[in-house]
Amino acid sequence: MHADYPWAAAPLIVSAPMAKVAMPKLAAAVSKAGGLGFIAAGYHSDHLEDLLEEAEDLLQEGTAESPIKVEEGTPKFLPVGVGFITWSASLEKALPSFSRYCPAAVWLFAPPLGFRDLIPWVTSIREATACRTKIWVQVGSVSDAVEVVEAIEPDVVVVQGLDAGGHSLARGASIISLVPEIKDKLRELRPFPQKQIDVFAAGGISDSRGVAAAVALGAHGCVLGTRFLASPESLVAHGYQKALLDASDGGTSTVRTKIYDKVRDIHGWPEGYDGRGLINRTFVDHLSGLSEVKNRELYREELNRGDEGYGVNGRLTTYAGTGVGLIREVIPAGDIVKSLREGARALLYGQNHVSKL
Amino acid sequence: MHADYPWAAAPLIVSAPMAKVAMPKLAAAVSKAGGLGFIAAGYHSDHLEDLLEEAEDLLQEGTAESPIKVEEGTPKFLPVGVGFITWSASLEKALPSFSRYCPAAVWLFAPPLGFRDLIPWVTSIREATACRTKIWVQVGSVSDAVEVVEAIEPDVVVVQGLDAGGHSLARGASIISLVPEIKDKLRELRPFPQKQIDVFAAGGISDSRGVAAAVALGAHGCVLGTRFLASPESLVAHGYQKALLDASDGGTSTVRTKIYDKVRDIHGWPEGYDGRGLINRTFVDHLSGLSEVKNRELYREELNRGDEGYGVNGRLTTYAGTGVGLIREVIPAGDIVKSLREGARALLYGQNHVSKL
Repeated sequence: MHADYPWAAAPLIVSAPMAKVAMPKLAAAVSKAGGLGFIAAGYHSDHLEDLLEEAEDLLQEGTAESPIKVEEGTPKFLPVGVGFITWSASLEKALPSFSRYCPAAVWLFAPPLGFRDLIPWVTSIREATACRTKIWVQVGSVSDAVEVVEAIEPDVVVVQGLDAGGHSLARGASIISLVPEIKDKLRELRPFPQKQIDVFAAGGISDSRGVAAAVALGAHGCVLGTRFLASPESLVAHGYQKALLDASDGGTSTVRTKIYDKVRDIHGWPEGYDGRGLINRTFVDHLSGLSEVKNRELYREELNRGDEGYGVNGRLTTYAGTGVGLIREVIPAGDIVKSLREGARALLYGQNHVSKL
Repeated sequence: MHADYPWAAAPLIVSAPMAKVAMPKLAAAVSKAGGLGFIAAGYHSDHLEDLLEEAEDLLQEGTAESPIKVEEGTPKFLPVGVGFITWSASLEKALPSFSRYCPAAVWLFAPPLGFRDLIPWVTSIREATACRTKIWVQVGSVSDAVEVVEAIEPDVVVVQGLDAGGHSLARGASIISLVPEIKDKLRELRPFPQKQIDVFAAGGISDSRGVAAAVALGAHGCVLGTRFLASPESLVAHGYQKALLDASDGGTSTVRTKIYDKVRDIHGWPEGYDGRGLINRTFVDHLSGLSEVKNRELYREELNRGDEGYGVNGRLTTYAGTGVGLIREVIPAGDIVKSLREGARALLYGQNHVSKL
């Protein structure tokens, strides 16, 4: 795995390609700290080349002291990843960028009907980058994982548990049982170590204890979303960040629902998906029976309130995972990566264990 | 903690007090292997003294080679625990047993209105056993944990995540975020190490990877339910065990619902609780709109089918957590304890880590 991400350190800390908010600044900061940052091409991929160019510029800065670098060539290797919401994004629009840039990884999420929908994506990206861009696919169940492996032989399976913020399967397990069961299944499907498919864990991880737990479960690394939203490099509003810091007891203060898509007029998520966000007035009113039309109207009015529109008494969508209660300050993305990695290493390999009762 | 459970080894592996199926045979086998086995007094506590007497007999067997023993005295110290479903069980009926036996722990679950309902339980059990019986209380959220500490100052908080089988809070997080957030909160409430409240993790753990993960999250040990159902010492039917072994992809094959209580005429669980079990025809028909009356009738008829009444095409309730897919054979409870403990120790303290990428 080291050959695929030569600048990175273990356990590999990854920032998720969160639509609209995980942009080149966040991705570059994460990769520069020895993690792997994903840029969200998101629902569309119209400006992908601009985003990759921006990432290139950011990654060139200060590389003298850092082992990270953009490798010249055609295409140029970029030590960041790009994520696509595949039921919505256009492969046709995305593909030209891959003749100029070779990101370290692409992350393919939520194909419209099944994982075979990803075959054109995978075939053309592998061809354009001579297989150097690694294929990451997000799954939420063991059967998903089996289907993905059979359809496209990915390099990495991102196992997303039910604690995750934002979009994921509405039903499922947390990574506690999902990661080991998928690991065992992949070993059964691909018994040869050289053909091993790496597993990354996502959902509910906010600090080094979660990272250490994921590694103990068998993951090669961790993906975090909510934790990176509370960094200056993410593109969320200050009101959004304040709502994250204010929240505690994530299993109680967040909820999985479709209403946050509906009020924002986002339609088309495949069957079985919803999103986890902080409970706010949009959700409470929805529960009390307020019509979607009226709820959407109130949401749109709330947009005028800016930062004030966030929080439990606000209406602006604040996607967040159950780990939100562990996030107590906004800190630079690079510091997050380093503290998660070093903290997890101390827990896993340090001498400070209580090894007796 | 060693002083409280002198026969036990770390990380402490605990079998849950599963109503009707976790009886003295299972509890004694778990404790004899260096874990802590709980006997379910369950919904009632009418026969508690008989259960404890049975446990005493079982624990006397073969103690020559084992560090475990029943300590003579008034009351006699028993190296097992007892669990009560407190909205239903009677303290009055349970209490006389504590003048004869001092179990190592009691586990108090689901008070009818709030954790202050546990004050009479805790006061009288501590008095009867001179505080030697440790008080374990199960919680499913950070606010639960705070309320418990303020109400009764427990010795142990069992943090149950949403992956758990059987009854628990219907909404919440998994242990991935819940254990660390509760640990931090308890440290804030009780900053002095000598007043520390121990945390145990429950929900979705079926093998040594889950145990190691829970320890990395900060738990002192783990509670497992479903895993111990697939042992010869549990009192579930062979059909139930076969259904557990047949199940995979636990996030998909299980569901949280109230219908399994309703068909069995179990009423009275406090607001906010439901139970996770394998999806079977009771649930599928319920989803399709079959009336509860008819569903209950079909459930009762199914009881005549015995072992055949379990499984995806059966109707008999099969509570199970999302970790069910990791359970592939019925093995003795003592072997489960040892393999979980040794496996977790190897993962946590062994030299076989991949410490580079």
